[in-house]
Amino acid sequence: MLAGIDLGGTQVRVALARSDGKIVASVKTRTPLLKTPQDLVDWAAAQIDKHRGRENVRSITIAAPGPIDLKRGVLVNPPNLPWQNVPLVALTSRATGAKVNLANDADMAALGEFHHGAGRGTKNMIYITWSTGVGGGMIIDGKLHRGAHGTAGEVGHMIIDPNGPLDSCGQRGCLEAFIGGKNLARDTGRPAAELFAAAARGDRGARGVVEQAARYMGIALISLTNAIDPEIFVIGGGVSRSWALVQPTMLATLRSSPFIKPARRPRLRRARLGDRAGQVGAVEWARINQ
Amino acid sequence: MLAGIDLGGTQVRVALARSDGKIVASVKTRTPLLKTPQDLVDWAAAQIDKHRGRENVRSITIAAPGPIDLKRGVLVNPPNLPWQNVPLVALTSRATGAKVNLANDADMAALGEFHHGAGRGTKNMIYITWSTGVGGGMIIDGKLHRGAHGTAGEVGHMIIDPNGPLDSCGQRGCLEAFIGGKNLARDTGRPAAELFAAAARGDRGARGVVEQAARYMGIALISLTNAIDPEIFVIGGGVSRSWALVQPTMLATLRSSPFIKPARRPRLRRARLGDRAGQVGAVEWARINQ
Repeated sequence: MLAGIDLGGTQVRVALARSDGKIVASVKTRTPLLKTPQDLVDWAAAQIDKHRGRENVRSITIAAPGPIDLKRGVLVNPPNLPWQNVPLVALTSRATGAKVNLANDADMAALGEFHHGAGRGTKNMIYITWSTGVGGGMIIDGKLHRGAHGTAGEVGHMIIDPNGPLDSCGQRGCLEAFIGGKNLARDTGRPAAELFAAAARGDRGARGVVEQAARYMGIALISLTNAIDPEIFVIGGGVSRSWALVQPTMLATLRSSPFIKPARRPRLRRARLGDRAGQVGAVEWARINQ
Repeated sequence: MLAGIDLGGTQVRVALARSDGKIVASVKTRTPLLKTPQDLVDWAAAQIDKHRGRENVRSITIAAPGPIDLKRGVLVNPPNLPWQNVPLVALTSRATGAKVNLANDADMAALGEFHHGAGRGTKNMIYITWSTGVGGGMIIDGKLHRGAHGTAGEVGHMIIDPNGPLDSCGQRGCLEAFIGGKNLARDTGRPAAELFAAAARGDRGARGVVEQAARYMGIALISLTNAIDPEIFVIGGGVSRSWALVQPTMLATLRSSPFIKPARRPRLRRARLGDRAGQVGAVEWARINQ
């Protein structure tokens, strides 16, 4: 059998699957209940043990927020967790006896959407998660592209305007500086969820902010289309729940480029797997790397 | 045997190679001497015939400036040639009896630099040609990435500042609008070659323009690094001859991103094959697709 563990700042999810990738059990818990990395590993190992029946679990992938040291299998300093330099691969492998891989959570969400969600049937897909921050993952020619150092897909840190606002990453004018939920909250003095709710109610100021954000995302889509020529963009993350608010402006901006002729314009789709994308992708990665 | 034909606005080059890709003969002529597409094909076929000895030429790749209809093998409307909708693959295949492929010239230059130039030994490389315009090609995981519609690598049309100047592509503020040789000439009233020569002599105004252009290129390198995570950037095209003028600012700009830690910062190299990159890549593509 295979397992995928999705370690998020709010929830931890474990999925068990048959060796063909079919998920047969899925459980979750609240991350803050697990005080230490060992608690996390113990909980996950117990869930796996409980649901595996008489089968062995051969391959496990842990999807975790970056930065990650892929080679050493270490969680370095995740922004939403109070842990540092956790040797997750070693701990999990000791607790389960399985082959364990660590992977970037946005990459795993991309893989999940590619194999079982909005990207099914395509070969070149860019997944973007738009939430507190902005991240992503790339499928090139049917395969996850992790890049030379495992950091491909950081589309939130493409520069949109070199004179723009400063992001917490230290860069000026990157996409996340303009449209990340945290930065939208900073700029407007309203939590992002409230801002999007107000825009949905028709609040003019909120609607203007949201539309401007969608326009910046559309500009990033133009740059990505010209550089990478994908078949499809899949947008996930919290903001994708407000699809009707952001989709028209993103698409209109992409269409506004006379250089990107309709015949090569990528499709723009909302992610389908919601919060499950990471665990679905992690199972898929465990299958590929078993 | 194999052949590569590189069709440029100034010169046409033909290279003949053994089936392992080793180039054994190379000839060129001035493009304006070939008045019609049939003249071009006849000249190239005669060169191939003259140099093939008793061997058959099985596979030919023609590197041509975009836009290209890859599927139909048609040169659509190249910016530097007075021809339109030329069925180059059909014409060349009829004249030579070989299997003929049409490919984008920047893609072929990328492939040439990857296999035999500055990118040798790497796996993920982005080639950028900086000249009158700005184009490029991508090697992902050791293979040329042409994209879903054959238009990947158009890095000159990534948006650097949405409020920037208008480019002839119709987009506002793309990289080429800021730094393409044609646009530098428009903005300064001096031909680009003269501008770079003046900068090399120490002309302050010219130097300022060139450094600002190199800074914009550096910003594009930051965006590409975050999105694609390459191992190396290889810069070719006419401007790369002024390497000492542009390299320090490009590199300093790339280094100025605190988000791109030294461990994952791509190398920045000047192309090595000069004007031969296209024909070398075309031979390689003919070998791969023989």
